[in-house]
Amino acid sequence: MSALLPHIDGVLAEYLADDAGYFIAGGRLLEHGRSEFQDYEVWDTPRFGKLFRLDGCFMTSERDEFYYHENLIQVPALAHPGPRSALIIGGGDGGSAEELFKHPGMERVLMVELDGKVVDIARRYLGEVHHGALDDPRLEIRIGDGLAYVEREGPASGERFDLVVLDLTDPVGPAEALYSEAFFHGCRNLLAPGGALTLHIGAPVFQPERVAGLVRGLRQVFAHVSPYFLYIPLYGSLWGMACASDAVQPAALSAAQVDAGIAQRQLGRLQHYNGAVHCAQFALPNHLRTLLAE
Amino acid sequence: MSALLPHIDGVLAEYLADDAGYFIAGGRLLEHGRSEFQDYEVWDTPRFGKLFRLDGCFMTSERDEFYYHENLIQVPALAHPGPRSALIIGGGDGGSAEELFKHPGMERVLMVELDGKVVDIARRYLGEVHHGALDDPRLEIRIGDGLAYVEREGPASGERFDLVVLDLTDPVGPAEALYSEAFFHGCRNLLAPGGALTLHIGAPVFQPERVAGLVRGLRQVFAHVSPYFLYIPLYGSLWGMACASDAVQPAALSAAQVDAGIAQRQLGRLQHYNGAVHCAQFALPNHLRTLLAE
Repeated sequence: MSALLPHIDGVLAEYLADDAGYFIAGGRLLEHGRSEFQDYEVWDTPRFGKLFRLDGCFMTSERDEFYYHENLIQVPALAHPGPRSALIIGGGDGGSAEELFKHPGMERVLMVELDGKVVDIARRYLGEVHHGALDDPRLEIRIGDGLAYVEREGPASGERFDLVVLDLTDPVGPAEALYSEAFFHGCRNLLAPGGALTLHIGAPVFQPERVAGLVRGLRQVFAHVSPYFLYIPLYGSLWGMACASDAVQPAALSAAQVDAGIAQRQLGRLQHYNGAVHCAQFALPNHLRTLLAE
Repeated sequence: MSALLPHIDGVLAEYLADDAGYFIAGGRLLEHGRSEFQDYEVWDTPRFGKLFRLDGCFMTSERDEFYYHENLIQVPALAHPGPRSALIIGGGDGGSAEELFKHPGMERVLMVELDGKVVDIARRYLGEVHHGALDDPRLEIRIGDGLAYVEREGPASGERFDLVVLDLTDPVGPAEALYSEAFFHGCRNLLAPGGALTLHIGAPVFQPERVAGLVRGLRQVFAHVSPYFLYIPLYGSLWGMACASDAVQPAALSAAQVDAGIAQRQLGRLQHYNGAVHCAQFALPNHLRTLLAE
């Protein structure tokens, strides 16, 4: 990434592209270091509360994590008739697991997280992100390589999942291979009949080629690919997600159907997601219709 | 505003709050100076093309002006059965006028712009924003005080408008009085029967009190107040707009009705706005439902 801004003490900056980004006051640095895989920092910021960064990139925060986690998980989970099992690749902060466990039918979540340090940081600082989900007896945490799990260990185990969640860093550097068409094929093979994959796909205004490329790749693998978009404060922009499946089509649900599902499954506290928002996120402006045309 | 960042040559930064903001590469400064009312700058930026700032705040740019102008104008204009006249307070860049003239029934637009320098800058640099609308024979440009027009000259003239557009700087400093309840009453008095007021109301994530306060103020004056939200790149965040009227209710339209209206009125090139987006912008996440509850 570029260095448009010099290092400024007390300011946390992140780039959306070489020529654009955003910044917040950092507040107090609570902990930082280097794990086997990456640099990590935990800040206590005035705006977002406790905030977690990896390799200088914003990952999640106490006060705005709901934008990302609710929509990454609930959009496919509500569209699935009754998810009972899920595989999370990454997601060591526990926010995705928490959203999955809001579904009373959820019996088992397997999290394959590369970096045990992320889970350790989450346990000690990010209770407002996972709300105890990291200690839920239905969760199995496996510290290991998601690529190896999807390519070899998962298929060998015979286990299949109603939802597969890619809760990863951006597709540059270490996570790049986890956004390839080959990897999407691997994820598809781990889905139970009727299952769905969910992932985030980047900032369409600043990274249009990345977003379009990921949607194209998913379409090579899955019968139904539903990109959707929402503004996420910590990510500084409109952000893309996608649900990919041979069966689940979340864009086909009405707001009333989603609201009925939320009520029936008694999902509990949702700060962002509701039936109207579910449907709204699939409405593409004309320039995104062009970018993502099949 | 705060000074979290020092001045950095070649970087344009804007604050959303004291502790948060965004930045872009400035590129080349084409012109700057001070008018009777404010500092102005025109940049040629790599990201947004020609970009116009007033008092250090981003106003509009060639490449992303459509997010703001299409939605500020088309949401109320499509909900109105057939707008023939409009009053713009501010709007000297001509982007709102251009959107109004996309409606073939539009016969007259009166623009009351405080600062003739803004119109001069727009004529010389911002052709991609106004596309010639500033020279449309249906447009009357009056350089003068919008407050005085709405309080005295407008009522005295007897002229009434199908749409009143507040296309102003943010409600701090010079424009503050143009966001008051008294001013909203004045705007209402200038509406023809069945008319609607449209305005932008700020960034709900970073300025929740401002957004909630403006919606409350509008509700004191109008029977129907419809806040709506979209991400605007140049403004760095989710941004609020509102349509206020005693008759027009844009949130009641279906996507199909809006698309039919776009086709019937032959609006021409729209880069963002369509029927699905029209409806989506009224879908409030739960935390905004709470913020804006009546």
